[in-house]
Amino acid sequence: MNVTVGGGSRHYRTVSFDRSGNRVVLIDQRLLPHRFKLAAMPDFRATARAIQNMVVRGAGAIAATAAYGLAQGARAFRGRDLAKFDIHLETVYQTLKAARPTAIDPVNAMNQVRAKLRSSQSIAQRQTVALAAAEEFADQNVEQCGLIGRHGERLIDNGMNVLTHCNAGWLAFVDIGSATAPLYAAQAGGKRFHVFCDETRPRFQGATLTAWELAQQKISHQVIADSAAGHLFQRGEIDLVIVGSDRTLGRTGEVANKIGTYTKAVLAKRHRVAFYVAIPLSTIDWNLKAGGDIPIEERHRDEVLGAWGILEGGRREYVRVANPSSDARNPGFDVTPPELITGIITPAGIFRAEQLWANRRKLGYGGGD
Amino acid sequence: MNVTVGGGSRHYRTVSFDRSGNRVVLIDQRLLPHRFKLAAMPDFRATARAIQNMVVRGAGAIAATAAYGLAQGARAFRGRDLAKFDIHLETVYQTLKAARPTAIDPVNAMNQVRAKLRSSQSIAQRQTVALAAAEEFADQNVEQCGLIGRHGERLIDNGMNVLTHCNAGWLAFVDIGSATAPLYAAQAGGKRFHVFCDETRPRFQGATLTAWELAQQKISHQVIADSAAGHLFQRGEIDLVIVGSDRTLGRTGEVANKIGTYTKAVLAKRHRVAFYVAIPLSTIDWNLKAGGDIPIEERHRDEVLGAWGILEGGRREYVRVANPSSDARNPGFDVTPPELITGIITPAGIFRAEQLWANRRKLGYGGGD
Repeated sequence: MNVTVGGGSRHYRTVSFDRSGNRVVLIDQRLLPHRFKLAAMPDFRATARAIQNMVVRGAGAIAATAAYGLAQGARAFRGRDLAKFDIHLETVYQTLKAARPTAIDPVNAMNQVRAKLRSSQSIAQRQTVALAAAEEFADQNVEQCGLIGRHGERLIDNGMNVLTHCNAGWLAFVDIGSATAPLYAAQAGGKRFHVFCDETRPRFQGATLTAWELAQQKISHQVIADSAAGHLFQRGEIDLVIVGSDRTLGRTGEVANKIGTYTKAVLAKRHRVAFYVAIPLSTIDWNLKAGGDIPIEERHRDEVLGAWGILEGGRREYVRVANPSSDARNPGFDVTPPELITGIITPAGIFRAEQLWANRRKLGYGGGD
Repeated sequence: MNVTVGGGSRHYRTVSFDRSGNRVVLIDQRLLPHRFKLAAMPDFRATARAIQNMVVRGAGAIAATAAYGLAQGARAFRGRDLAKFDIHLETVYQTLKAARPTAIDPVNAMNQVRAKLRSSQSIAQRQTVALAAAEEFADQNVEQCGLIGRHGERLIDNGMNVLTHCNAGWLAFVDIGSATAPLYAAQAGGKRFHVFCDETRPRFQGATLTAWELAQQKISHQVIADSAAGHLFQRGEIDLVIVGSDRTLGRTGEVANKIGTYTKAVLAKRHRVAFYVAIPLSTIDWNLKAGGDIPIEERHRDEVLGAWGILEGGRREYVRVANPSSDARNPGFDVTPPELITGIITPAGIFRAEQLWANRRKLGYGGGD
């Protein structure tokens, strides 16, 4: 999307590749919303560290980063021995995979790249194909988000107030985003609307990343405490909810997403407000049979016991908020059942959550029944 | 309640009075949970400033502070002219009233003190009666909280997990608290249970004050992000919810309380978990006829756009969290309808929210029908 830096507006992808320098180029998301800066990773180990340290985050974005990182590693190989090249590539693959061990998207993305190398017989060919495959993966990601926007755009009417949670924006993908895609498409179509961004404690992705994205695109928006949405629902001030998903079960329609998503779905149902989940196809898990089987990461308690922000002078600091001797619980995700979901916005169209399995061929399911 | 300071444990009230020094003594709540310190107000103007600057907060606590402040002002009068005394007292009254102009409890408390002065004919008598009436008000507040504990204690079983929101603890009253009263009574009765404290964005009263209170009383507890409760309800990890109230409508049973309370009530209903509201009688508003008439304070946006906490070295600082160019909405309260409330715990017993009006004589209603 376009970013205004130093007076000029320019188009950026979250993840891109510098061919001549063989560098993976990332928007450093740890500095947002206070500073916009590109970070160029000089080798695959630096790229893996960038994934690990959350310079880049979001399923689609880290998947593309891993795909580019694999190509970067392949292209850095100096030698003529194909067997040694393959050993080297395995090291690159394992290094990138280990950067976020619980994420499935980087592995899928790298597998897609690796599968394309097999038909090439020379090292030079494999290096060329690796980069082409990584570029193709990134382009597919952008294309899927574009299609989500095309299908979801019609849900947004002029004058609507839309609630979103966490960041399923273009920063979480290569471009455009999933939950934000309908917003950007509606804006491009000339519609005017307002967005409430849940701040999304404990890591504040809504207050920081989503609010920054919407400000860049000049979309009217306000940040709210996660607790405030209920009151706005009561007052009839929310007309539509769109969120993203970290994993959606193709067999049941259950949606795992950032902690707090379930609560918003419960409130939307009570107030008869439409609740949509926007996802690229790679988010669908066709294997798991029950939402209870989705592992819910328990994150570090310090996230809940304090907050990161910037001081008056601009220095980024962690402040301890809670009583020092108190412990915290910090589940990172929750699971929303299909009966609370109005529809799933996918690149292939909008489906009832319960109907994903019935439509599995359209949704890219490659397995048997 | 007891506080452990410097190795020893001692009983403190949130608000008390130093007769010999004619000072109102407050626990400085701005410093909690990081530092426990008493602040003695040397004159009624300092007492008013302490209310204004939130050295003391919470309806019961500021009411007692205003009552003591009125007595303090009365006792400081030097002279023999009763008419001049009355003019002075009116200044004291208006100064304390103006400290938190929207709060009703300090006004009610001062009116109670002032009504008792009228029968006394000398200045010395009025000074004595003023302090006695202020002490009586504070003692009544403690007694009411004690009765809430006695009635509410039976709701808590061994091994339960109890959710609470914001701080309706002893720091918000003179002692014991409202929502916390059943917890302290249950603990005194030998029961063991666990409390989840909603952190309560944007001002974090749960993470700071409630967590500090429970830690002082050695009650097992954990802080959670406000968004996390939904997930805990889903997993069956919450057995009971107890919250306080800023204003409860005696005619309808609607409960105004800290923003986010309504959301917890909706979740509790969905998961068939009991949801109780604990209140002293002064919280009941017998006049308003509809929850929609309750004014909902829109607080400053900076509360949502950032957070107060302490840096590594112990200095208290505000950090800006949100995107700098973004605005925020910050409603301070919401209204929970009676159908979501299992019961209202009062000093006179536990009542269905819809039954407050039918029981108005027991609940201190002094008006006509």
